[in-house]
Amino acid sequence: MGALGTHFLVELNECNSEVLRDLKRIEEILLTAAKKANATVVESRFHQFSPFGISGLVVIAESHLSIHTWPEHNYAAVDIFTCGESLKPHLAISYLVEKLGSLKSSVVELKRGLFSKEGTVLDSIALKEGGRFRHVSGKILQVVH
Amino acid sequence: MGALGTHFLVELNECNSEVLRDLKRIEEILLTAAKKANATVVESRFHQFSPFGISGLVVIAESHLSIHTWPEHNYAAVDIFTCGESLKPHLAISYLVEKLGSLKSSVVELKRGLFSKEGTVLDSIALKEGGRFRHVSGKILQVVH
Repeated sequence: MGALGTHFLVELNECNSEVLRDLKRIEEILLTAAKKANATVVESRFHQFSPFGISGLVVIAESHLSIHTWPEHNYAAVDIFTCGESLKPHLAISYLVEKLGSLKSSVVELKRGLFSKEGTVLDSIALKEGGRFRHVSGKILQVVH
Repeated sequence: MGALGTHFLVELNECNSEVLRDLKRIEEILLTAAKKANATVVESRFHQFSPFGISGLVVIAESHLSIHTWPEHNYAAVDIFTCGESLKPHLAISYLVEKLGSLKSSVVELKRGLFSKEGTVLDSIALKEGGRFRHVSGKILQVVH
């Protein structure tokens, strides 16, 4: 089994809410995280929403990083989507945990764009649980023409 | 159980590779998909990579949409991350399937930022399989101070 992309879903709970509402710090932290992962940053956009909460997206040559913060819940959701083998997403994740002051966090690793040894594309994703990848079939979509 | 975010992982296989390498069309399609979902588009960025492949990110007031295309594999990975109840992500997904000409596609629905009835944050995500949500515990991260 091969995969075109690796996707990390990072759940950051019990964070420092002051950091989660600080646009400038969130921007610095996510961009530094991208660099720690050895990613090539192409462009980034960060927005503060009312009454609070920040969304940030970073285009990297190897796919993307995103963050959404809920300071009122001390929670941030981070995604790191990568392709290729040269990145070190775990370094980015450790850095984010530390800088957002998250006391309770977890990361789920997925494989996207799966194909068999014969090169056939698969309509599932793979999810790492207990150290092993397991195929998860999503709802198959029907195209009505 | 409540959740702050809903996240759709959309696997689009056997797409029209001409569309997947057309920056302008991918941009139009993803922005129209966001509107079909009833999302409020804040900003968007699209990039063409060499030799081919497009990455697009759309910041919406309700979180984000992303796309990465691999025209050489007729594959695109789309993410739709939403918060709130007002969006219609399924309309966006159907539209994407149709416009990218995907003959084989699937969607996995996740819940992010889970909390218990008592309001305690959980360190898992929930994944919809067979019509029901199942908790998936990621690798718990240790913070070393």
